[in-house]
Order: sequence, then structure tokens, then C-alpha cells
Amino acid sequence: MSEENNPSRRLILGGALGAAGVAVAAAGGFGNGSSASGSSGAEVPFYGRHQAGIATPSQDRLMFAAFDLTTTDRQDVMELLGTWAAAAAQMTKGLPVGNVNNAPQAPPVDTGEAEGLPPSNLTITVGFGGSLFDHRFGLSGRRPAALAPIPALPKDNLRPELSNGDLCVQACADDPQVAFHAIRNFTRLARGTAVLRWSQLGFGKTSSTSTSQQTPRNLMGFKDGTRNVKGEDLTRMRDYVWVGNETDQPWMRGGSYAVTRRIRMLIESWDTDYLADQERVFGRAKITGAPLTGKHEFDTPDLSAKAKDGTPVISPAAHIRLAAPASNGGKAILRRGYSFTDGIDPVTGYLDAGLFFIAYQQDAHQQFVRIQRQLAAHDALNEYIEHNSSALFAIPPGLSGPGDWWGKKLFTA
Amino acid sequence: MSEENNPSRRLILGGALGAAGVAVAAAGGFGNGSSASGSSGAEVPFYGRHQAGIATPSQDRLMFAAFDLTTTDRQDVMELLGTWAAAAAQMTKGLPVGNVNNAPQAPPVDTGEAEGLPPSNLTITVGFGGSLFDHRFGLSGRRPAALAPIPALPKDNLRPELSNGDLCVQACADDPQVAFHAIRNFTRLARGTAVLRWSQLGFGKTSSTSTSQQTPRNLMGFKDGTRNVKGEDLTRMRDYVWVGNETDQPWMRGGSYAVTRRIRMLIESWDTDYLADQERVFGRAKITGAPLTGKHEFDTPDLSAKAKDGTPVISPAAHIRLAAPASNGGKAILRRGYSFTDGIDPVTGYLDAGLFFIAYQQDAHQQFVRIQRQLAAHDALNEYIEHNSSALFAIPPGLSGPGDWWGKKLFTA
Repeated sequence: MSEENNPSRRLILGGALGAAGVAVAAAGGFGNGSSASGSSGAEVPFYGRHQAGIATPSQDRLMFAAFDLTTTDRQDVMELLGTWAAAAAQMTKGLPVGNVNNAPQAPPVDTGEAEGLPPSNLTITVGFGGSLFDHRFGLSGRRPAALAPIPALPKDNLRPELSNGDLCVQACADDPQVAFHAIRNFTRLARGTAVLRWSQLGFGKTSSTSTSQQTPRNLMGFKDGTRNVKGEDLTRMRDYVWVGNETDQPWMRGGSYAVTRRIRMLIESWDTDYLADQERVFGRAKITGAPLTGKHEFDTPDLSAKAKDGTPVISPAAHIRLAAPASNGGKAILRRGYSFTDGIDPVTGYLDAGLFFIAYQQDAHQQFVRIQRQLAAHDALNEYIEHNSSALFAIPPGLSGPGDWWGKKLFTA
Repeated sequence: MSEENNPSRRLILGGALGAAGVAVAAAGGFGNGSSASGSSGAEVPFYGRHQAGIATPSQDRLMFAAFDLTTTDRQDVMELLGTWAAAAAQMTKGLPVGNVNNAPQAPPVDTGEAEGLPPSNLTITVGFGGSLFDHRFGLSGRRPAALAPIPALPKDNLRPELSNGDLCVQACADDPQVAFHAIRNFTRLARGTAVLRWSQLGFGKTSSTSTSQQTPRNLMGFKDGTRNVKGEDLTRMRDYVWVGNETDQPWMRGGSYAVTRRIRMLIESWDTDYLADQERVFGRAKITGAPLTGKHEFDTPDLSAKAKDGTPVISPAAHIRLAAPASNGGKAILRRGYSFTDGIDPVTGYLDAGLFFIAYQQDAHQQFVRIQRQLAAHDALNEYIEHNSSALFAIPPGLSGPGDWWGKKLFTA
């Protein structure tokens, strides 16, 4: 393997962060961080077979960003990914991406706003959009079939400038300043190679991804994701979330596919709807989260139950019926959404708020697209929501350790 | 006092929440909430001589909103303020504004997304903009002189649609979902009487307002508000923050004046500046927060200290010099700012992020305006910031108990 095909050594030990003025801590320096303990200060391991931030119990806050590459040089992209990997290894330990303090005549390598804050369970998850595999970087032969664009779906009202992107970065943390810091420093390290395309702050998690978590409420006031795939359920994670041997692209094994959708809620309309109708729309009781056929949140919905008058207890158009695996050929997805608000809609004067939906799965076309096609056609919830951003990203497997980087096998194998 | 001039009894015990379909818990029902304990679950008393949310130790998160009245009926405004007061008393205890669950054929009174969440130190602070005192409501004779508009200041680049408003609501909490819930339910309760004008989510506090708190960092990576007025310092609170007998409007005694400014940071430019220059701009060391004339964060800056070459150690244009009480006739303010990010600036492609500045003071013209005029003319920081929203609100005193509401003395005395 030539030097050119083995950027990791050069990148991580050498000049990768040169562009930012000062070299990041060398690879050998990783692992000596003094991370705080406690749940909000805890540290999620950055390296592993799968990327963190998928099976990880959902952190409280999110900042998500999509980037467009401004370079046409494949080597630049490889260097960026190596630089980001070195920076992520630092930040997920609660350490700055480089020294802030000992080069007065240079810009600080780290922007500093997370200085003194604990790791806060920060995870940084990176993915590749379909456009990365166009003519620019010689990767078209390595594009997974599963990364084909999401087709237009009924009732989509997408804003192109808030959709897609060459690269994505999901930063989740219990402290939003820590998540913001990660995206900001990635943006800075990308200067000259990539620019922000869109970003989204999520202020509260709306899905539990762990049996250790209570089910949070979305901005419609309902518990969301009761039947979500949980990270501890290794069988469902294997069957529905992680890419396995079925892929046409071996570099994706151990990875996943992320779909993001900015789902605005028309909350002013929702808030005028009667409780009984709200519960009919979801198929669950508002306070307890129990399915309308049960008493407790985790009771399995009985989709065949009939009321005395013969009508289904859970409406044919109920969200939990249409989204249920039983209605989708057994297909499930791991949801990891966050509530957002972006101020006032200047046209209507209403709050621009809703759910930034993120779902991980083995194949978005077999899973998300199938489920969403059914929801978009029939879901009673459609009266109260609007999808205005959409993206699909290939999430490569985890990094093995210092010197590894996202997509190394894609670019170099 | 006629029935018309005494809306409190009618409002609180009767039909105030009728507009939302179901009456809120009656006044006698307050105080029986089961509030969680622990710092993130803690409850801040809603009633008191001063409004909470000023001297209260800064909570982690903010949602701020300005409303415009759509009614021209003074009685409607009084009813709204009474309704909001009843709702705030509930929400600051971690309780819904009304029953969510027992009226299937009516919209739930509370939107439900904070159901099950602890009070999270929620404070709700309400104020009146200068426009409330125009011809509409017969209040022009009661407008405090101190509520005169903030004059145009050097380098202002204000967006009118993000500035001013008839009413303001500051919701601070340790959980952003709790703060959002408060603003959303206030918006809903205002339907037919007032509409949102602008709102701002703040994801991380940038000022400590208590000696019990560490000084947080702003998005420039610097500790901010080291010399802030602290809520425990009753002498400075009296001298600089609370309105006293000096006011021309007795209904304002025990209140304060809030200035809000959306200060966008041009962080991409800032991030390319050398460390030594960043420290010169602020007059402090980046990591420790110590003034350049000291070693520790809380060392008093020596504004007269000279370097060996005779130049001032703290630059004439340094932020801490120009903002210091010693440079402003002894005037201080209580800052309560929050970092924000609102995605990508569509023009530049850069992050739209910065500081949502909130300051409380006895008289904004004698304090904020005086300080800001000096900063806007000379502060080295100006190269990296842009003020694009501004507002001034009269913050009336606290509520004495159930049946009281914001501005009751203004409207009825």
C-alpha cells in the first residue's frame, strides 16, 4: 500500500490538524483524559465495532449537521475524515480538539466553549450522503444499492436547502453546549474542504433507545417510541439496524443507514383537537401511553380488537397501527428523534416546532420508506404534521482505534 | 371597587380559562402539587415581592417570547394576565395548567409535553413593552419615564420583527422542554387576545447570577459575567436592579427593567483570531478567566496597570474595561444571557449563533444604554458581533399570591 493510500498514519500523527494551526494531541496521547463521572458527566466509548450514537441510550440533546464538500480532491476528503476522527476521540472524552492555550500568536485549535464541561455522554456519528458517490471522488462503484435516494413520498413538502448533503454529523450529548461545540469544531476543521449545508438543534429527546430509559413525550404531548427497537435487544439490532452480510458493499458491514426528517407539527391545530380524537389519532391514551386496547404503556396493542359496535378499537388510521411491525411485514426501525423549535414561522406567526426524526436501520428502502409510504397515505396524524426536510446517509461501521477513520475501507481497501 | 375594576376574583375563580375549554384548578387548589426534589427537579417559589427569574440562580435553559396584543379591549388584557398568572402558578410547581385527561370531547387544557417532568426550577417572568402604554388601553398616563424607547445605538443592525413587543415572557428552566411548554401554553391561553411576535430558544446559560454558580462560557469560549451582580448581594440588587422609590410610577416598585439583545457572534471570524488578540479583546485570559492584570478569575481587574513599555495591560478597547462599573459612573447591571443557535445563515452559509443577552436593572437608560453606548463606540469586540434584536420591558413586581396578577396595580389601582 502506497503512502498515498494509507493516509491514516500521516493524518493522525502528522499534519492533519495543521490547517487549524496546531497539531492535535498525537494518537498515543488518547486515553489519558480526566473525564468526570456521574450520569451527566459520563463518557461513551468512541471506538468500537459500531459507531456510538445509535444503540447508545438517547442523550438529552442533539445538534445535527449536514456538510457539502467544496473540494474535488479525494485526498482532501480522506484528510478531513481523519482529522475529524482525531478530534472526535478527544471531544468524546471531554477534551479540547487541541491545545487552547499555549500559542498566543495562533488561533486556538479548540474554540473553547466546552472547556471545563464533562464529556456529557457525547457521541459523534458520521455518515455519507448519496452525493458523495457521484463523479467527484471516484467512489461511484462503491455506492451501496441501499443508498439510492428516498423516493418522493405522498404529502412531502421538502425544502431542498434543508435536505441531503455529502456528509452528516450527529452530535448527541446531555449538555447542548457540548453537542454544539462538536459541530462547530468540525465545521472549523473542515474549512477549505467542506461547508455546512444545514443544521438542526434538538432540545429534547423524543425516543428512548434503551430499556433503562423512560419513554419521553413529543410536542404533541404523547409518549413516543414505546415499541422502539432498544439497543440492548441484540437480536432486533442485528435483524433491523446493523448492516450485515446482505450488503453489496463490504465496507458497510457493521454500519447502518440513517434517515432524517424534519417533521413540523402544526401544534396550534393539534392543540384545538379534542382529547378523544388525539388519542384516536395515535391509538394510545395521552397520559399513560397505554394502547387503547390496554391499560399500561408497554401492553402490546391488540390491532384486531373490536368495540361493541364492531369498529376497531385502534382506528384503521391510527399512527401506532400503521407504524407497527405487524402492518409492515415485520419491519422495525430504531428511532432517535428530538423535539425542535426554530422560533416563529414568519408566514403564519405560529411556532415553528416539531420533531426532528432520526431513524437507523439496515436498509431504509425496506424499512423507513415502506413504513412512511403507508403512514403518508393513511395516517390520521398527517392533518397535523408536515415533512419539510429529508435525508438518507450511509453510516459506516465504528472505528477500531486511533489511526482509523470513517470510511477508511471505502476509500482505501 | 367595582366588579369591573376587580377582575382577580372573577378571573381566577371563574372563567379565566374558559377560553381554553376547562377551568384551571381553582386558587384554593394551589400548593398541593407533588413536586420532585433534587436540583434539576427543584421548585422556585412563584409568589414573592419580586418576580422570580431575576435574582434566581440562572437555570440552564431559556425560552423567551414577545407577544403583541390583538385586542383593543383593556378587560381582555387583564383577563389574559390573570389567566397567565394562574397557569404560571401551576407550571412552576410542575403541574399542568389544567386537567389533561377527563374531558374527552374537549381539547386538553394543557398540551401535555411536560407531563411527568419535574418543575426543573422553572421561572416565568412577565413584562410590559412601551407599546402597551399607547392609545389602546388607556394606560398612557401610567407609562414609566424609564420605559422610553432605547435610542438607536452605534452599529445597531436591528430587525424590527425580532424586536420589541407589547408583552414579554421569560421562561427559564433546567429542562428546555419545561421552558418550551410554558411559552407554548401561554401562547395557547392567549389565543384571541395576543399572538407571538418573536421567540428565542437559549440552549446554555452564559451568566451566573449567584455566588453558588461557576461562571459559564459564552460561544467565544470566554467566561462571561465574572463581575455580574449576584442575587445574593442585596445591596447591589437594591442599588442597581430593583425599582425603588425613585420611580415616577408606584406600580413599578419592586420591579425591574429588562433589556434583551440578540447578539449574533461572527464566530467564523472570531475562530481565526489569535489567542493573544482574543484575550486582548476581552481583557481576560481565555482558560482561567483571570483579568490580564491578575492570576485568578475573581481578581479585580487593575485598569490602571501599565506594561513595561508604558501601554495599558488591559487595552483601552478591552470589553471588561469598557463594561466595568468604574468606566460607567459606577453603574452595574444583572446579566442573564443564554447562548443560541438558529441554524445556518442562508446568506453566508455560516452558523447563526451567539448570545441572547438579557439584563435587569433599575433604569435601562441610566445603566444598559450608558454602558452599551460606550461599548458600541469603542469595544474591540464589535468586530466580531452584531446586535440584531433589541427590546426593553418594564418588569412589574412579584405577585402576592393566588388572585394577584402582573400589573394588577397598573390596571386597577
